[in-house]
Amino acid sequence: MTPKTQREWRIAGHPDGRPLKASDFELATAPMAEPGPGEVLVATRYLAFEPAQKSWMENAAGYKAPVKIGDVIPGSGAGVVAASRHPGFAPGDLVYGDLSWREFNVMPGEALDKAPEGVPLDAVLSVMAGSGRTAYLALMKVGRPVAGDTLVISGAAGAVGSLVGQIGKIAGCRVIGIAGGAEKCAWLTDELGFDATIDYKGEKVRSRLRELCPAGVDIFFDNVGGEILNDVLARLALKARVVICGAISRYNFDPRSEEMPPGPRNYFNVVFTGATIQGFLAPHYRRDFPEADARLAGWVRDGRIMARPDLLQGIENAPAALMRLFEGGNRGKQLVRLTET
Amino acid sequence: MTPKTQREWRIAGHPDGRPLKASDFELATAPMAEPGPGEVLVATRYLAFEPAQKSWMENAAGYKAPVKIGDVIPGSGAGVVAASRHPGFAPGDLVYGDLSWREFNVMPGEALDKAPEGVPLDAVLSVMAGSGRTAYLALMKVGRPVAGDTLVISGAAGAVGSLVGQIGKIAGCRVIGIAGGAEKCAWLTDELGFDATIDYKGEKVRSRLRELCPAGVDIFFDNVGGEILNDVLARLALKARVVICGAISRYNFDPRSEEMPPGPRNYFNVVFTGATIQGFLAPHYRRDFPEADARLAGWVRDGRIMARPDLLQGIENAPAALMRLFEGGNRGKQLVRLTET
Repeated sequence: MTPKTQREWRIAGHPDGRPLKASDFELATAPMAEPGPGEVLVATRYLAFEPAQKSWMENAAGYKAPVKIGDVIPGSGAGVVAASRHPGFAPGDLVYGDLSWREFNVMPGEALDKAPEGVPLDAVLSVMAGSGRTAYLALMKVGRPVAGDTLVISGAAGAVGSLVGQIGKIAGCRVIGIAGGAEKCAWLTDELGFDATIDYKGEKVRSRLRELCPAGVDIFFDNVGGEILNDVLARLALKARVVICGAISRYNFDPRSEEMPPGPRNYFNVVFTGATIQGFLAPHYRRDFPEADARLAGWVRDGRIMARPDLLQGIENAPAALMRLFEGGNRGKQLVRLTET
Repeated sequence: MTPKTQREWRIAGHPDGRPLKASDFELATAPMAEPGPGEVLVATRYLAFEPAQKSWMENAAGYKAPVKIGDVIPGSGAGVVAASRHPGFAPGDLVYGDLSWREFNVMPGEALDKAPEGVPLDAVLSVMAGSGRTAYLALMKVGRPVAGDTLVISGAAGAVGSLVGQIGKIAGCRVIGIAGGAEKCAWLTDELGFDATIDYKGEKVRSRLRELCPAGVDIFFDNVGGEILNDVLARLALKARVVICGAISRYNFDPRSEEMPPGPRNYFNVVFTGATIQGFLAPHYRRDFPEADARLAGWVRDGRIMARPDLLQGIENAPAALMRLFEGGNRGKQLVRLTET
């Protein structure tokens, strides 16, 4: 039986163009919702976090439907079906989708995917779902790896970056991760099989790139932007592909202002190399989601990709989990677990 | 009979990171050279100018072989064969290639192309050769126009831009040119058939783009960089292609310094649109030169492309011709004619 009330996080402030703070979030108690026809009641087991959620909270152009103060915070996660009025779902089914920050979500059945056989929910959220689809599709469809390519990844210890590196190894690339701190770098090489790393906090990115990529960078997978992007643009190989997937360095600026940080002045090197800079946004690749899901699930089952989520415990830690992303606090996919086990 | 001496322009200063000035050039008299085996003596009829020639004079990375003070200035042009020791050429042949700034050039036969039947030398230089190949290949192979696309061109009244617009019309695009001044804009619409123009000196580029491209820009062909590039990046359509062909706004900076102007801060819009920014450099497309040459020659003969070179008279005006490019002085391809007719 489901309880009569549940806890949920609501938007208390729009963080337009400044870092998130605790007062942007309000924990409230709400009545339990009932599923209508075609709907499913999901008990949340995990919430998943990504930097774009800050943009959702500030109604940045190009992202989700607008939110207002007092709305439940939109997000993503996984859970167990508690009640179903949709013929495709039964109580006990393990599902994932765009769950909001609440203990129970009423969702249309069409908005949910079932967790594949043999892939636990925390692995679904860290290796498949948003981050996995993004890593697989952005690398494969935009980066277009060729065996032997040198693949450089910024934000390599993040949820997407740590997967891109593992997929790049499967595709036959030499994989170099850029991350902040010796501990993250050691994790990338020792646990995830990266070939080399650059610690941007302790090393000079430009000179390390020169050492590690004497023949240039064939694919740059960028989650960071700013000076790291600019430095890699100076080292592109002929016909290089630069995948713009994110720009954590830009999240604390109001995109509507003129104060956005400057773009990469080395962009003009694309002329000398014939290189391509292309953006990636997952919704443009919806028809390829089944391909991504099937391959990723197979690689998790095979043990070729390791799910290494970064877990916080309890829904009360959801704001802290989101804020960690902007401090570089997480290593791998940031999740919050709502149950004890 | 050829004279015993000839005039030639030599490099007297490297304009590293500053505008060109008259003292960078020295007009000298040199002995006539004799063609060796396999070589051809060409009497220069026209010299052709492009912004990259400044980079050649300052030995910028990514361009031609280095030059030193006192060297004859490398360039391109067209002329008449005066003497030949190459079996493929005979006196009187009309040829074009990388002629230096001198009245007579000795060239290996392999470095020369013959002017096609029915295309006068000034049309060869303005519609084919460097500018034409660049316009055709950068638009077709990187821009990849689809009939119905909205094509926006910066530096539209320049040698390359004015051709890109005409080729874009042949490909079925709606063509919008950005140029400086009402006179250039009128020339683009009235003589060259552009659909609309934006005078960046007299109009607000951003608001004019909003008016003229309500559904966004499918192809942006950029010869300018700077704020114009940034403004267009804010108006990209889904899956837009941005062709980086040049950046006249960057030529008066030393590329080795940290003072290069910032890149376009709106680059991140490629994420929301899935757009591609790709560079073009003609030597990467050598195998496509015959295709470009054949199509362009055909369109000149058909009258579908108009050659509208901007002519100065006399080799003594070569430095002025090059400097005009950076002042926006030219309309169409800048040439210097060495003979009276």
